[in-house]
Amino acid sequence: MNFKRRTHTCGELRTKDVGQSVVLNGWVDSRRDLGGVIFIGLRDRYGITQVIFDSEQNESAHKIGKELRSEFVVSVEGKVIKRPDDQISSDMDTGEIDVVVDSVTILNEAETPPFPIKDNVDAFDDLKLKYRYLDLRRAPLQKNLMIRHRMYQVTRNYFDKNDFVEVETPTLMKSTPEGARDYLVPSRLHSGRFYALPQSPQTYKQLLMVSGFDKYFQIVKCFRDEDLRADRQPEFTQIDVEMSFVDTEDVFKAVEGLMKVLFKQIWNKELQFPVQRFTFDEAVEKYGSDKPDIRFGLELVTLNDVFTNSEFKVFKDAVSANGIVTGFAATGCADYSRNQIDNLTEAVKNLGAKGLVWLKVKDKGLDSPVAKFLSDDEKDKLQENLNANQGDLILILAGDRMKTLTQMGALRLEMAKRLELVNEDTEPKLLWVTDFPLLEWDEETKRFYAMHHPFTSPRMEDVGLLDTEPGKVKARAYDLVLNGHEIAGGSIRIHDSGLQAKMFKALGISKEEAERKFGFLMSAFKYGAPPHGGIAFGFDRMVMIFAGLDSIRDTIAFPKTTSATSLMDESPSEVADEQLKELHIKLRNEKDS
Amino acid sequence: MNFKRRTHTCGELRTKDVGQSVVLNGWVDSRRDLGGVIFIGLRDRYGITQVIFDSEQNESAHKIGKELRSEFVVSVEGKVIKRPDDQISSDMDTGEIDVVVDSVTILNEAETPPFPIKDNVDAFDDLKLKYRYLDLRRAPLQKNLMIRHRMYQVTRNYFDKNDFVEVETPTLMKSTPEGARDYLVPSRLHSGRFYALPQSPQTYKQLLMVSGFDKYFQIVKCFRDEDLRADRQPEFTQIDVEMSFVDTEDVFKAVEGLMKVLFKQIWNKELQFPVQRFTFDEAVEKYGSDKPDIRFGLELVTLNDVFTNSEFKVFKDAVSANGIVTGFAATGCADYSRNQIDNLTEAVKNLGAKGLVWLKVKDKGLDSPVAKFLSDDEKDKLQENLNANQGDLILILAGDRMKTLTQMGALRLEMAKRLELVNEDTEPKLLWVTDFPLLEWDEETKRFYAMHHPFTSPRMEDVGLLDTEPGKVKARAYDLVLNGHEIAGGSIRIHDSGLQAKMFKALGISKEEAERKFGFLMSAFKYGAPPHGGIAFGFDRMVMIFAGLDSIRDTIAFPKTTSATSLMDESPSEVADEQLKELHIKLRNEKDS
Repeated sequence: MNFKRRTHTCGELRTKDVGQSVVLNGWVDSRRDLGGVIFIGLRDRYGITQVIFDSEQNESAHKIGKELRSEFVVSVEGKVIKRPDDQISSDMDTGEIDVVVDSVTILNEAETPPFPIKDNVDAFDDLKLKYRYLDLRRAPLQKNLMIRHRMYQVTRNYFDKNDFVEVETPTLMKSTPEGARDYLVPSRLHSGRFYALPQSPQTYKQLLMVSGFDKYFQIVKCFRDEDLRADRQPEFTQIDVEMSFVDTEDVFKAVEGLMKVLFKQIWNKELQFPVQRFTFDEAVEKYGSDKPDIRFGLELVTLNDVFTNSEFKVFKDAVSANGIVTGFAATGCADYSRNQIDNLTEAVKNLGAKGLVWLKVKDKGLDSPVAKFLSDDEKDKLQENLNANQGDLILILAGDRMKTLTQMGALRLEMAKRLELVNEDTEPKLLWVTDFPLLEWDEETKRFYAMHHPFTSPRMEDVGLLDTEPGKVKARAYDLVLNGHEIAGGSIRIHDSGLQAKMFKALGISKEEAERKFGFLMSAFKYGAPPHGGIAFGFDRMVMIFAGLDSIRDTIAFPKTTSATSLMDESPSEVADEQLKELHIKLRNEKDS
Repeated sequence: MNFKRRTHTCGELRTKDVGQSVVLNGWVDSRRDLGGVIFIGLRDRYGITQVIFDSEQNESAHKIGKELRSEFVVSVEGKVIKRPDDQISSDMDTGEIDVVVDSVTILNEAETPPFPIKDNVDAFDDLKLKYRYLDLRRAPLQKNLMIRHRMYQVTRNYFDKNDFVEVETPTLMKSTPEGARDYLVPSRLHSGRFYALPQSPQTYKQLLMVSGFDKYFQIVKCFRDEDLRADRQPEFTQIDVEMSFVDTEDVFKAVEGLMKVLFKQIWNKELQFPVQRFTFDEAVEKYGSDKPDIRFGLELVTLNDVFTNSEFKVFKDAVSANGIVTGFAATGCADYSRNQIDNLTEAVKNLGAKGLVWLKVKDKGLDSPVAKFLSDDEKDKLQENLNANQGDLILILAGDRMKTLTQMGALRLEMAKRLELVNEDTEPKLLWVTDFPLLEWDEETKRFYAMHHPFTSPRMEDVGLLDTEPGKVKARAYDLVLNGHEIAGGSIRIHDSGLQAKMFKALGISKEEAERKFGFLMSAFKYGAPPHGGIAFGFDRMVMIFAGLDSIRDTIAFPKTTSATSLMDESPSEVADEQLKELHIKLRNEKDS
């Protein structure tokens, strides 16, 4: 097809271009037909320009203009004119000019789209996913992908400038499931054998450190075959980083440097230094979360000391069972209705709490069903500890330490939402959480699992505990948290094959299994592995936060649904039996063992 | 482990640092023990620094120094001193200084590596692949990956600066095999269904054009389950590019801009403009190849006119059967021995030629077994056409046009090698090949295949031929060739659903199959697809050429063998039957149909 190629984009023309003859290519965004004159908003990625078909000036162009419909693709040639002063549109970059059309070519027609291409669209998610290529025409989605684009570049430029080497690691690798399920890829050349898609390039990046690459980074696709929660994707993108001859402080410095440039270049904000740090224990006790949102207060206060000898059995029992009594004061919520409080109670019960204790701070004292069980001294200390003032609502949970704190953390977030403590103008808050437990006990399988992964180094002072009290060992692990979202996690790694063997043992992984799965890594550690550590960022989530979105899906060009399907091309799909035959596999019948 | 973290890298210290107290971390590269004094070459990615353990200056450090062996990882603290003038080493950046060690910590010991870590290693490829993490410690491989790193950055910065948007496309996609085999990924959530890994993001990038992203790029992993030739990898990396509202010239301009910065920043060379162009027909006729190496001459000359009425049957038959007689003059090879010529004959026979006609240009005329069949006029014209002078060797093949030209192209490359026409100082040559045939006839399956892929647009003037003489239709397709390697291929695409349907028909793809496989793309074309086109670069091969290598494998951190295995971690590997069960598949027995 021959057509006049654009001289300018649809977002480019200004008053200084008046008088020029120009060619624009784009989509019909809007159309106003006033009879003799037709106004078309012509759109491309860069903006919208109003073009005018005037029957008096050019009848043949006007005639074609009459045929144009929404989303037609056209090439127009015309002259830039200044708009009359009373028609200047200040909300468009091109709002001071129009283009009067001399000639026009329809490059492609368009059927009426299943939903209109505009900023806010009232259509079902599934319809939008099926026609994702049309959804992606909408300005908000284009903006998200542009932010994502910018973040790729800022990130890579930062690491490049700081002497990190970008290395691609394999996508077809060995299956070593530990935790999440692997996606498998049957091998055609090796009957009965399979590759796995990487859950992360963890082992490869550690091998690169053994190779002496010193500082490595990669923005890389990873895969987990999980039952997808609302906002997970089977394939996700990670900023992967590893450094040699480092301690935690070196990793923190490198990461904070990246965050500084992202804050500046994406948000035009200065990251405040020093970046706050909390140990895992502190974060959980104060915020009921290992990814605390500290953009607002409502800090939890442990009240065990207040209620050690309480008459109120619920509190006393919790304290004496090595549990916790924890509370916070919801500012100005003393006027909550019975109904509102019932809702909160319901919410924490759904999380497993037995009940919610509430006390309204009134002018005459604490108003609460449990007030009568509390001594005056307890009431005073309670108010004092929580810094609760008249008009506040005190909320308290008691029970098993970790569970209760987690429930309280959720309640804290819920109250922040109700109190609208976070809005568009709230300053973002970045922080580190450190000193995670190395291992987590799983009641179901009666074994320990690595809280991060099996290559995480314990704190050197805790190594002795690995054999005796593994649950008490802290890890040299850290998470980076932005606005209450974990955006990165990492650790200083084990670089000693003896300690690595000890770790596998604590995880109940036999020598044989360790050798079969990770023999190559253990072997690599014997040829001069340097001390090393690193981190991996959840890139999709970072884009979500930086773009001010609620959903990871909106940061991805072609996302999958929660059942891991693509509604656009209907994958996964059936394949020819010939393909399976070549791969030496067949479908399993339900009756197959 | 507590250790002193480096103040400098091992490539950093210079005369100006003399007197400073420094800490270096690195590997023991070399070791000379002179009794009271031990010299260690301490290595990291950045270089090697000589450190000295002197028993008189520090006995305890010297004692530990005695324990050090190759590839031990150490942290040394010491003072920078100037080397005596007669010991200055000009081939090391740090060759003017030494570090006299005050204290040393062994960070990790090392067993003796299976091969030495030095530039040239005499070890089997398989051993090096098994211990790839040690092979990667060698300077040549580190250099290759550093060049690769630089090429990633240069490429992305170029596209970013030119308003291209980086978009990640899915890795788990729909299986639509057409040509090469897909790698399949069984779905756990959807029994009996499969994802495929992308052979290229072709459909996605075209959808992004429909979405209005206008200019897209991505450096992306792609996958082909092929029987691997010597230098192919099952996963490979592509620079993927697509542009809207463009013609061939716009794509060329964008691509040449990238090549210009790569030439400059990787080679410090200026790319010469204009970049030469050959049509497919010209390239094949003149160089016997659609990826001609024009760094040297030896151009083929078609001799049909000379031999139309020849007495020499071989030539005459070729001409009258619409075949070709083609030859070139190998400069200065008239003294080739019988044995040398037999070798050449053997080589072209292995490629399918019936025989090789040779004529030595001697002072007394043409010396050749076939000379007696040729008239004087033919001999004169032959010499004239080939510009053959005394001392040259004329080589001629005759037969079916395409086959003969291809054989002749191979012979041309062989002669260039023998004549050493290309060396390190030869200037690189970049060129375009255009006007490829749209379709290729396959004798075996008796159908046409797309020479590039089914989305390639025919030349507009040839569209009418699609129904009548599809083999004659030329495509709006182009390849970019560097030093005789195809480094990129692309085309202007079909953007019209009607023409796309016509193309599928010419390929023998039924309406139903087209709908099942590519329905979403055909549908997208109905909602306003802009004219668009693009290109994809084979990134691994580009790195190979820019790094001056012979093998793609040397450009990849963790490559696979020709049987698609990783010798390091032994993938693909067997997996637990539990994993297969969850994926609703089982292994196929040999007796299974």
